[in-house]
Amino acid sequence: MARKIVKSKYFVEEDFTEVLAEVPQGGSEPLPPADKTRVIGQPVSRVDGYDKVSGTARYTFDIALPNMAHARTLRSPHSHARITAIHTREAEQMPGVLAVIHHGNSPEIPWYGNSFLFDPHVRYVGDEVACVAAETADAAEAALRRIKVDYEILPFVTDAAAAMKEDAPAVHEGGNVQGGKPSVYARGDYDAGRAEADVVVEETFSTQVEVHNPTEVHCSVANWDGDRLTVWDSTQAIFGVRDTVSRSLNLPASNVRVIKKYMGGGFGSKLAAGKYTVMAALLARQIGRPVKITLDRTEMNLAVGNRPDSVQTLTVGTRRDGTLTAMRHYSYGAVGAYPSGAGCSWPFRTIYQCPNLQTEEYSVFINAGPGRPFRAPGHVQGTFALESMMDMVAEKLGMDPLDFRRKNHATTDQVMNLPYTSKKLLEAYDAGARAIGWERRRKVPGSDKGRFKRGIGVASQIWWGGGGPPAGVFLKLNRDGSVRLIAGTQDIGTGTYTTMTQVAAEILEIPMERIQVNLGDTAVGPYCPLSGGSLTTPSVMPAVAHAAQQMKAKLLSGAAAIMEVPETELEYRQGEVLHATGAQKKMTIPEIVGKMREQVLVTFGERNANPEGFAINSFGAQFADVEVDTLTGKVRVVKVVAAHDIGRAINRMTLENQFHGGIMQGLGFALQEERVIDPQTGKVLTVNLHDYKMPTIMDIPEIEVIIVSEADTKISNVGAKGAGEPAMIPTPGAIANAIYNAIGVRILSMPMSPDKILTALSKKGQSS
Amino acid sequence: MARKIVKSKYFVEEDFTEVLAEVPQGGSEPLPPADKTRVIGQPVSRVDGYDKVSGTARYTFDIALPNMAHARTLRSPHSHARITAIHTREAEQMPGVLAVIHHGNSPEIPWYGNSFLFDPHVRYVGDEVACVAAETADAAEAALRRIKVDYEILPFVTDAAAAMKEDAPAVHEGGNVQGGKPSVYARGDYDAGRAEADVVVEETFSTQVEVHNPTEVHCSVANWDGDRLTVWDSTQAIFGVRDTVSRSLNLPASNVRVIKKYMGGGFGSKLAAGKYTVMAALLARQIGRPVKITLDRTEMNLAVGNRPDSVQTLTVGTRRDGTLTAMRHYSYGAVGAYPSGAGCSWPFRTIYQCPNLQTEEYSVFINAGPGRPFRAPGHVQGTFALESMMDMVAEKLGMDPLDFRRKNHATTDQVMNLPYTSKKLLEAYDAGARAIGWERRRKVPGSDKGRFKRGIGVASQIWWGGGGPPAGVFLKLNRDGSVRLIAGTQDIGTGTYTTMTQVAAEILEIPMERIQVNLGDTAVGPYCPLSGGSLTTPSVMPAVAHAAQQMKAKLLSGAAAIMEVPETELEYRQGEVLHATGAQKKMTIPEIVGKMREQVLVTFGERNANPEGFAINSFGAQFADVEVDTLTGKVRVVKVVAAHDIGRAINRMTLENQFHGGIMQGLGFALQEERVIDPQTGKVLTVNLHDYKMPTIMDIPEIEVIIVSEADTKISNVGAKGAGEPAMIPTPGAIANAIYNAIGVRILSMPMSPDKILTALSKKGQSS
Repeated sequence: MARKIVKSKYFVEEDFTEVLAEVPQGGSEPLPPADKTRVIGQPVSRVDGYDKVSGTARYTFDIALPNMAHARTLRSPHSHARITAIHTREAEQMPGVLAVIHHGNSPEIPWYGNSFLFDPHVRYVGDEVACVAAETADAAEAALRRIKVDYEILPFVTDAAAAMKEDAPAVHEGGNVQGGKPSVYARGDYDAGRAEADVVVEETFSTQVEVHNPTEVHCSVANWDGDRLTVWDSTQAIFGVRDTVSRSLNLPASNVRVIKKYMGGGFGSKLAAGKYTVMAALLARQIGRPVKITLDRTEMNLAVGNRPDSVQTLTVGTRRDGTLTAMRHYSYGAVGAYPSGAGCSWPFRTIYQCPNLQTEEYSVFINAGPGRPFRAPGHVQGTFALESMMDMVAEKLGMDPLDFRRKNHATTDQVMNLPYTSKKLLEAYDAGARAIGWERRRKVPGSDKGRFKRGIGVASQIWWGGGGPPAGVFLKLNRDGSVRLIAGTQDIGTGTYTTMTQVAAEILEIPMERIQVNLGDTAVGPYCPLSGGSLTTPSVMPAVAHAAQQMKAKLLSGAAAIMEVPETELEYRQGEVLHATGAQKKMTIPEIVGKMREQVLVTFGERNANPEGFAINSFGAQFADVEVDTLTGKVRVVKVVAAHDIGRAINRMTLENQFHGGIMQGLGFALQEERVIDPQTGKVLTVNLHDYKMPTIMDIPEIEVIIVSEADTKISNVGAKGAGEPAMIPTPGAIANAIYNAIGVRILSMPMSPDKILTALSKKGQSS
Repeated sequence: MARKIVKSKYFVEEDFTEVLAEVPQGGSEPLPPADKTRVIGQPVSRVDGYDKVSGTARYTFDIALPNMAHARTLRSPHSHARITAIHTREAEQMPGVLAVIHHGNSPEIPWYGNSFLFDPHVRYVGDEVACVAAETADAAEAALRRIKVDYEILPFVTDAAAAMKEDAPAVHEGGNVQGGKPSVYARGDYDAGRAEADVVVEETFSTQVEVHNPTEVHCSVANWDGDRLTVWDSTQAIFGVRDTVSRSLNLPASNVRVIKKYMGGGFGSKLAAGKYTVMAALLARQIGRPVKITLDRTEMNLAVGNRPDSVQTLTVGTRRDGTLTAMRHYSYGAVGAYPSGAGCSWPFRTIYQCPNLQTEEYSVFINAGPGRPFRAPGHVQGTFALESMMDMVAEKLGMDPLDFRRKNHATTDQVMNLPYTSKKLLEAYDAGARAIGWERRRKVPGSDKGRFKRGIGVASQIWWGGGGPPAGVFLKLNRDGSVRLIAGTQDIGTGTYTTMTQVAAEILEIPMERIQVNLGDTAVGPYCPLSGGSLTTPSVMPAVAHAAQQMKAKLLSGAAAIMEVPETELEYRQGEVLHATGAQKKMTIPEIVGKMREQVLVTFGERNANPEGFAINSFGAQFADVEVDTLTGKVRVVKVVAAHDIGRAINRMTLENQFHGGIMQGLGFALQEERVIDPQTGKVLTVNLHDYKMPTIMDIPEIEVIIVSEADTKISNVGAKGAGEPAMIPTPGAIANAIYNAIGVRILSMPMSPDKILTALSKKGQSS
């Protein structure tokens, strides 16, 4: 294997730095195309289905250790204040209370880069003030109410536009613009491009703050053995949690073991270690008992992240024939009280061909809960604005919106100046248009008669999704021919247990039932990336394939030595090795393994380095068919067609599950979900699922998933790209364009809720 | 790596068959000699010491799962009977009772090779009849008393000599001699050798049945997730338990996960899966809840194994100069009701040079609990007889017993006709003799005046202890430079966690505190052998070294690429890589790893194949200094010197712990432990630790451990031989010879208890 410096191109929340890689180049043996695979690509039921439907699946909240204590967190009731004193004696003396920790009696542990685990300067309603361990969660909760905190109240700001003003209250020293300046990008000559344009459209769009609100609450259990700590955590990143916890507690990483078997959703809110995890570990060490800490729905709506809002002003210039000549994106968004990113211009920069382009983005501190990555960070809000704008320009040009998009199809990554390993967006337009019945689009917007008006719209998407190293998998072959896979990835509900099993079953040609998978344990599995950013499938599956291919090779060479024939005369078929000259000579896996018993039959598979000189992205076109009730303003999404290029599909069923989830989450964001802060008090008004309106089973449209891609053989042996984000990204944009097609009025502000629809209709004089 | 057919030479309870091995030949880079190591060889405290002394260590009995039920076993009160009917209704209707299983309502699962999990033909007092699951262990226990069993009582036999008679009750069809015939071995011409002899001595020795009685009770917890089973088990062989359980339940091996973290002793009684483990799994599946099954001390004394007794007739002929010319060993022993091995002639065949030799051994079924391997199976009883005989012959020849042994020192393995990789027995004689003050031996036996008589004796030992493949270890390097080792071995209390840590710390030159070890989990660790037969250290430590050496090589080559210098100019020192030309250029492990981050930094270490054409054994000479109270007959062991050749010592402290334990167990066997069966009723009279007399802290002599060996570089990179059995094997023989030296009367029958001492003295007219 060659050793070389390669650039890391996959999506992580770190710098893109040069790293030294000694990983297989170009992947191991490529798997056969989809029509030749037996297990891969099939809609196989989840291997963990029984556990989940029977209730035996152990989620973090189900962990119950002997003598376990329970912790609850006291949070700031003020948007901005300094703690001048904290009085815990009364709380400490309550029955069942075991310990109270806060900034005054616990180590100063850095957090967020510019704050601390317990910071006496609190910056939002929900900021952590103290944490109580008690015999029961109720006792801990009761004790919170007896902690008296003296606050010096400070002026606050809860709106990005206001926060950017000179005289705004400073959330942090150094001003409210994160990093002190915008993030800018430019190529070509925007002004010249704009001058070349025959048509210029400029418009401002806004999107709201969305909260992740996964079904499963955030929860950690911490248990010490001497100076070794085990943490059960509901997390998308066992290694990330391990590293943050060990760094926070000044322990070697090997002393911290993080375990997560099953998870009920994260969507980005569980990507990084939570303060609660470290607080539980501190309390557990102090009281010498295991501690479970559980967040309630209010805390989940306040303190564990959200999608930053955005105000985006887009300017787009084209020639009369529809060729883009200039594009400009100016945006700002509120990241909450601590560093995050509100940028949302990546799709704008890359998905359409345009030589002259500028973006300028401001991430702004306000006194509110911190932003976190949320399923396709930046891309969903950016795509809503971009794709709305594409339709607006097309209309101005008198072009069909799909034709306008095809016209400006980008064949290379214009930021990195690289060709794509594959891009099947044009195929997605065609397939999706056929499925939705795009010819219906040719009506005049808003021309339906009567109260209910139908419309269809399209939006494109680009995401990363190529994955990459490091990702490793151990494969252990047992003497009976059954197999165990072990990896340091985590199944966050997306079906990783199942797809890993499929890949190994495909290559070893054994029943899936003979394969078991161990995930979610840092003390056990080789390093794999966090599960987010559509990284898991494209990173881990090639490592599984690599491990299985090596094991097959071991079995073949072992059988050759045992049978005393050249390996070239042997064929591996359905878990047996046959001698080509006749069926007489054959050995089953257990027979081969039985003779190889001095060997420990393990292999280690690794994700290959990505090919140099290419950009790797997934693409898709999504089509929405909506019906608008012009009496109530309510939008019903009738159907969504999702036509995507995600490389090879490993499991058609879990893939569709992903798409259904992504479309529903996009639908909720488009139409109804919104975190609302009362600007007078700074309090969040939507801290429960009554006030924070998530879509329900009643809102699910018909969904048709079309995969236009085959394996992308340039990437890896498996050739899968990730599919976690793609279905979410274009959903609001497609719905926005469909609403316009239905009612002939454009809604520029998300959520596209009944009040905004009715207001817009009444302005146009169209409400029924 | 070359692929080849090698013979497996290490000790396993399987055939010695040809296997195909593709394992490193000749070991990886040998470690430096003892005076050059920094951590290896040091008396390092156990890394799990805190867990154990603080009580946080979780043994199998400490496992408590939510909703867990408890099981107890109904056992036959008869020595031999057929169950004609079993009535469980009353038991089933008792409060808290959840299920009752027995031969009539559960699958017919083969056990012992010639019986079943529940066999309606019961063959000893304690044979399993039924098993009850209930809400509590007490409820289960109470239910046992309400199960009515109708038995057809059969004649029984509890003595091997009686069982060998033609008309004895047949424990099994086919007669009571296991296999129908004795196991025989011969070399040279015994009759000719005997004819050449100037002196011939013949004597018969006997040894009693010894019961393992580890501190920790036998215990399993079984928990199902669908068709996947997790078993926590107090076992010396996680993979063996996994394979037996999966075979019994007709599951793929990968569906059964066996976990054992800590253990309080096994000594062979926990080498194989127990019936109780499978019964717990059956009950757990039936009631849909986890089930814990715990054996009590009575059951441990009846049903989980014992050391078969022996009657050994030895004939030894020598020339007048002490040269052995002929040796004959005839023996029989009771293996209990199910197959085991009562053979004990291996030391007789190998430790001394003798061209003409015969052995004939009978393993005999009786109606008693089954035999199991017990710390040095066969060797302890065989060595007692052989070493007593060596002293008797030496006395007859008028030779010093040590001189007689030196004279007949064997330089090769006479059974396999192979040289030893190393044999330092002569050095052990010299070192041990100096330490015990062997010149005191020159007195006339029994010549001390007064009530208390002192004497010293010696005995030699031979054991296997070379270990071998398969044994594998994963090593994971974390980005902060800390390390995790993962292996499918188990620490049965001998210090494996600690010694593995030492080996990795030695090679990677990092503090032991930065290394954590995962053992005892079949779903996690690569295959390693059972922990018995002194296999663990010589098998697993070389794999650890191999993994660590590979990781060091990865770091060096990584650093070379990063620093852009040839690897040959780099030096690895204390976790840093230095450029030889100056200290300016250096990188720490975290710095190197930080730059190598596309790699998953794991290595897989394997135990090399053993060298061909050699026998591998450990050797030792043990010296006992005893004082006999001629009034009470009680023997006090004053001091034991153990001088051994066990290759390289990894940890001087845990090694001494092993020796202390082995010597005490040998002392108990020599002087007091004995399973007693009432021949009239067939009942065991010694089912508790009041009646079964184990030695206590009051009986511990002064112990001096001398290691005469260095690393055996022929075996492996580490060069360790096992040291689990060696200290036990020669202890009874050394004590027997010391007693003779003290009182001038030879005790031919173990235990050498006060009654036998007094009887012998009174026969000689010497009791005071």
